[in-house]
Amino acid sequence: MEKYQAVSKNIALVMDQVEFVNGKTRVYGIVGDPIEQVRSPEMVTWEMQKRDHNALLIPMHIARDEFDSVMPHIMRMRNLDGLIFTIPFKAQAIALAKTLGPQASQIGAINALKKHSSGAWSGEIFDGIGCVEAFKQKGITLQDKRLQLIGLGGAGSAICVALAYEKPKLMRLFDINPQTTERMAKMVNTISPQTVIEVGLPHAEGIDILLNASPVGMLNDARLPLAVEQFKKELIVFDAIVMPENTPLLSLAHDCGCQFVRGREMMLGQISKIVDYFFAP
Amino acid sequence: MEKYQAVSKNIALVMDQVEFVNGKTRVYGIVGDPIEQVRSPEMVTWEMQKRDHNALLIPMHIARDEFDSVMPHIMRMRNLDGLIFTIPFKAQAIALAKTLGPQASQIGAINALKKHSSGAWSGEIFDGIGCVEAFKQKGITLQDKRLQLIGLGGAGSAICVALAYEKPKLMRLFDINPQTTERMAKMVNTISPQTVIEVGLPHAEGIDILLNASPVGMLNDARLPLAVEQFKKELIVFDAIVMPENTPLLSLAHDCGCQFVRGREMMLGQISKIVDYFFAP
Repeated sequence: MEKYQAVSKNIALVMDQVEFVNGKTRVYGIVGDPIEQVRSPEMVTWEMQKRDHNALLIPMHIARDEFDSVMPHIMRMRNLDGLIFTIPFKAQAIALAKTLGPQASQIGAINALKKHSSGAWSGEIFDGIGCVEAFKQKGITLQDKRLQLIGLGGAGSAICVALAYEKPKLMRLFDINPQTTERMAKMVNTISPQTVIEVGLPHAEGIDILLNASPVGMLNDARLPLAVEQFKKELIVFDAIVMPENTPLLSLAHDCGCQFVRGREMMLGQISKIVDYFFAP
Repeated sequence: MEKYQAVSKNIALVMDQVEFVNGKTRVYGIVGDPIEQVRSPEMVTWEMQKRDHNALLIPMHIARDEFDSVMPHIMRMRNLDGLIFTIPFKAQAIALAKTLGPQASQIGAINALKKHSSGAWSGEIFDGIGCVEAFKQKGITLQDKRLQLIGLGGAGSAICVALAYEKPKLMRLFDINPQTTERMAKMVNTISPQTVIEVGLPHAEGIDILLNASPVGMLNDARLPLAVEQFKKELIVFDAIVMPENTPLLSLAHDCGCQFVRGREMMLGQISKIVDYFFAP
């Protein structure tokens, strides 16, 4: 009987070593082109397995010109329950959703798609929601605050909409494209009519929270996204940039004794909210 | 700076905890309907990661009536490098392969599909190859041996073909369907013209190795697949059945002091050979 037991142990050993996937695992994917740089597979899988879900998120590399034809078929995989979209698919992916969350409707883009038990798929964009969540995690409320937001591109417009839903007292908006600024100002007004809206060159006077969602300060760019030499220490500073962690703006905020919120905290906040969304009933 | 470091540690912690998937992971899948019972996700992933490949195998539940339309699109995923097929798709999947291995050509079914660097997909069936590998792992050669094979269905026909490629001295074949037996006898003759072929009711006289690939003895079936009361101790006995591990046939072999090879060893042998196939240049 020793031979029997030896083989049984062998199998048990395998089953013990690979605890993260089995036949019952629910599959999620992040879809992008390119895909190798994404961090969601580790981070979302960690968040899901930490919450005791038998689920993991894999990278899915779909070519740009095949996205529209391939995705509806991939979504027929019965044990696929959700998708995240990254560059260049956030706008295109909206066509895959039967229903949209409020922020996706405003922005015209999604980065998460969730299958309901009915089989229907709904989409929402979480870039801005992740930013708001990062503030909440630090006990900072946005309601009735005076905000300066710099940059209203892909991430910036999503952050702008999410901030508006928090009903701040004032939002100053700046983007290098004045038409974009104008469009986002109208959107903020629709979402939160009581918020005072200002547009123009960015500054930190009369502002409680300064948010950068422009690319200024990314990688080896040593510039600040606004003309300033120092901040009052009561100012709270946010930078959406993930690389480097230590942007010129956050360095200045740190040197001035300001509280700050970083791009990676927004990323973690976003992951937490996307996993909430995926597993909500 | 402590705040910076705290967040960095947090991220590093996540990356350390989830070592099994990231943006560069190559994806493999097992396709079946149903899917929850499969063991390949743990076992193939374990085999791949043990060999230091950044790869994992996920369950893919595709409905029977959607297989033909969905699969060619799933195969457009650029970081998907291989597929395994289980019930009910082994015959149907052959249409997805541009080229076939020798055993798949004989059987008319595949259970593994591999993407070459050219982007072309080739298929092979490994049920029989896994059986032969299990014997090799125990140092048992099949060449010039006298074999009795019982059962020539899905797994049995694949085992029959793989055994024939080993050029045994004699093969006695039995299946409850005489036409199946006739067809497989011809196939063995084509593959190994020097092998003596016998058909008829199974027995262990004048036989070196007795192989059961019939379902007799599965689960709570207490029957033996042939009329026998005991074996000579020189006989080697194989049973393709995985559940239970301890089949009536293997119990008798054990009681008679015979060497034996089990269904799970065939399964492990098959996984090893499939991973060889996936990662061969």
